[in-house]
Amino acid sequence: MKDTLKLDEDQKAWVVLEGTSKAVDRACELELEPLGLSPTAAGVLYLLKTAEETVTPSKLSRWMFREAHTMSGLINRMEKQGLVKRAKDLERKNMVRVTLTEKGEQALRGAWDAALVSRITSCLSKQERDNLKAYLKKLQTRALEIMRDLQPLPYT
Amino acid sequence: MKDTLKLDEDQKAWVVLEGTSKAVDRACELELEPLGLSPTAAGVLYLLKTAEETVTPSKLSRWMFREAHTMSGLINRMEKQGLVKRAKDLERKNMVRVTLTEKGEQALRGAWDAALVSRITSCLSKQERDNLKAYLKKLQTRALEIMRDLQPLPYT
Repeated sequence: MKDTLKLDEDQKAWVVLEGTSKAVDRACELELEPLGLSPTAAGVLYLLKTAEETVTPSKLSRWMFREAHTMSGLINRMEKQGLVKRAKDLERKNMVRVTLTEKGEQALRGAWDAALVSRITSCLSKQERDNLKAYLKKLQTRALEIMRDLQPLPYT
Repeated sequence: MKDTLKLDEDQKAWVVLEGTSKAVDRACELELEPLGLSPTAAGVLYLLKTAEETVTPSKLSRWMFREAHTMSGLINRMEKQGLVKRAKDLERKNMVRVTLTEKGEQALRGAWDAALVSRITSCLSKQERDNLKAYLKKLQTRALEIMRDLQPLPYT
């Protein structure tokens, strides 16, 4: 099999993409560790703070490409930490909405101020950063196509 | 705090990077699910197949930016699945090496043949793919610098 395992140019690029995203995730984890937050938890706090619509667990799992049960477990842990609250929607009783607590706001502010990793593209020129964004958006579209082909729900 | 949460251009690019890597990871998970492999497990199989040196658990955790205990847990699970073997090194008795089993080889071949996601950059032109790689390598270098600043070991 050794011969057939020679990486082609696309696979080499993918290895770099994977390696970079792992390194960036790990740097982000280390940065947030002193605040008791995971990168995903910080993402949830940010989405709760900035969303212009009612946020439900299932919206969070779709926005963050997480399985429903994974997101549900995370929200449970964050609720125990006092960062978020679950509440039944007043108008649609069967809908659970997730909101930010005062403690959640403070944690988000701490994460926001740490934020070295979230400005990591400052090591690129403006042109490079714009190109990077355009390429990544193409990859994201392609990844979503593959996801939909493999598992029609909940990605359509 | 709402005002101070306006994303600057670097943070917007980072959100795209995060979203893309999550989407690509999820697509990869879906692709490997029928084979009973996680993307990380497939990565371990690939490294075991292609490494030109003795592979130890600690090397795997460094190469894949995973904590030692996370990698150790993964290797345990993969050993139970019969995909890898742990063995004491014959020359250096205190060193544990990890090797691929026949079943691991077969699983790797299956993952290799599935490989839609690992060629995801085929949606870019050659020039775009080369640029992307160059930008990502810069980001990876920067992420490693941040990691070393935050936690000198084991990244130095």
